[in-house]
Amino acid sequence: MHAADGSCCGHDHSHGPKHIYIYSPSGAVRDKAAFRRGVQRLQALGHDVEVDPDALSSQQRFAGDDATRLAAIHRAAASGADVALISRGGYGLTRILPGIKYKAVAKAIAKGTQFVGLSDFTAFQLAMLAQTGATTWAGPALNADFGVDAKDGGEVDDIMLDCFEDLLSGQGEGAGWQMPRIGELPNGKPQLKDFYVPGGATLWGGNLAVLVSLLGTPYFPQIEGGILFLEDVGEHPYRIERMLTQLLLSGVLARQKAIVFGQFTEFKLGSHDKGFKLQTVIDWLRMQVRCPVLQGLPFGHVPTKVLLPVGAQVSLSVEGRDALIYWGHGH
Amino acid sequence: MHAADGSCCGHDHSHGPKHIYIYSPSGAVRDKAAFRRGVQRLQALGHDVEVDPDALSSQQRFAGDDATRLAAIHRAAASGADVALISRGGYGLTRILPGIKYKAVAKAIAKGTQFVGLSDFTAFQLAMLAQTGATTWAGPALNADFGVDAKDGGEVDDIMLDCFEDLLSGQGEGAGWQMPRIGELPNGKPQLKDFYVPGGATLWGGNLAVLVSLLGTPYFPQIEGGILFLEDVGEHPYRIERMLTQLLLSGVLARQKAIVFGQFTEFKLGSHDKGFKLQTVIDWLRMQVRCPVLQGLPFGHVPTKVLLPVGAQVSLSVEGRDALIYWGHGH
Repeated sequence: MHAADGSCCGHDHSHGPKHIYIYSPSGAVRDKAAFRRGVQRLQALGHDVEVDPDALSSQQRFAGDDATRLAAIHRAAASGADVALISRGGYGLTRILPGIKYKAVAKAIAKGTQFVGLSDFTAFQLAMLAQTGATTWAGPALNADFGVDAKDGGEVDDIMLDCFEDLLSGQGEGAGWQMPRIGELPNGKPQLKDFYVPGGATLWGGNLAVLVSLLGTPYFPQIEGGILFLEDVGEHPYRIERMLTQLLLSGVLARQKAIVFGQFTEFKLGSHDKGFKLQTVIDWLRMQVRCPVLQGLPFGHVPTKVLLPVGAQVSLSVEGRDALIYWGHGH
Repeated sequence: MHAADGSCCGHDHSHGPKHIYIYSPSGAVRDKAAFRRGVQRLQALGHDVEVDPDALSSQQRFAGDDATRLAAIHRAAASGADVALISRGGYGLTRILPGIKYKAVAKAIAKGTQFVGLSDFTAFQLAMLAQTGATTWAGPALNADFGVDAKDGGEVDDIMLDCFEDLLSGQGEGAGWQMPRIGELPNGKPQLKDFYVPGGATLWGGNLAVLVSLLGTPYFPQIEGGILFLEDVGEHPYRIERMLTQLLLSGVLARQKAIVFGQFTEFKLGSHDKGFKLQTVIDWLRMQVRCPVLQGLPFGHVPTKVLLPVGAQVSLSVEGRDALIYWGHGH
């Protein structure tokens, strides 16, 4: 189950066609060619793809006004689909959180509809977890992950696709990856020893900026003894540090059994930084918390991403550079 | 006391030389020429300027490591100065909040040292308010406000200087400004009626991103019936809206008697925004809250800024386009 750049399983993915519902709860879809390619790729994989009537709606920067996007979420929940997949992230979910019918969505999840997405979608996932305890999936979005342009040499990522098919076939049971080699901490301590967190730890997290933007609201889950995973895009390390400081000072980090860094991408260091960089921030955090801090999780705004059950009970093991989040069967 | 672009008072500022202590609790000072110009301008105004030994220290992007910056804050508190003025903002205060000796700083404030600054300094100001109730001043920083380069046609701003001298002479009693003309809300309601909040409302706020980064921590003040003022720099309106949403969903805004927008500067709208802009966000907020929402406060990352007592009891009046925050004598 391990691989240098992340893996899910080696299962045979033979299963009947699945019903995939595409909708847009956040930003407007501007790249309609990518949207069409994404739909066609899912169809070519043998799936029935249903597109929400407002999936391509646009109002200012949003995929339709608040009522439109709320209705799209509720149609996705009522669709009876196997998977409800967002077209893209962007921005737009936090402001409509009070309007979501959480019990209705949780009922749809209990009946077998898996909600999948990332980035701004973190707001929906954490609100669902806080309000109902239901599990959703941190994973791909249609446009960026299935809509890549073959003309640009773009291919749908194998590992992402394996993990996605694992979810569809109900065979997914964990995500493994190899962590980067990193040195000692400034205080001379080794970065990480082998350890094992037995099953029963709640896996949660997602986009750091979106997660932190829920702190203090009724949509921030109160998780004790959890495994917290984080990713972000376009945030300078000083902002990442400020957000981690907020989680630290609010007591959230002290209640976790592990913190797992995914991919933090598309930021620029400047001449003012003078050696301050992402690893500086992660090393600083290691000295602020007692729990292990892992790196290199293949998840974030990158093609190679695993799917992760937000809200599920998982175990976590680290042996040398090999890390494994395991949730077994039964989701 | 009113003026189109903000004003403090028309007092005579004859007073003896004041003792001003310059220190660096946040980012490293890179523009040392601006620093020197700032010190010289304060001296030319007749003041005794004391420069903290680590005011020009640098470690990565910070003005010295955490212990260095904490020591600088505590030296400023022990200096007996009339004003402790930051050299600049940047980033660095949130991560050292647990190390500040709040009672010692509050004692210095009670003895007459006024702490003045803005931007990242908001973290210090709100933490002081949350931990001790002490009043600090949202106002200028040495480099950007007193260190402007005359060669570039830069002059120290008259209104800022008037307000600063008001603070030094103990004569400041309020800040007035004329609000911009704005239209009806999308729902047809007028933007703002005349109103009056009698004295006894706590004035608080500062930099929106820094303020929001304290939510959920022991350094976020719990203010009932307050006047909340906000400014920011380099934040896209969607991020401003996400931060306001957090204040809204956490119940903070519902507990205020008024929300006052200062200057939000240096952001870029993109083609994806399609009409979404700062005023869209402010108009949206007006429809989410019951209290009045004011605009145009001359405070933020702009030359013309008033000084505002964070934590003081104030009154607020709006008559037509004229707004006045009044704190009377006795600070």
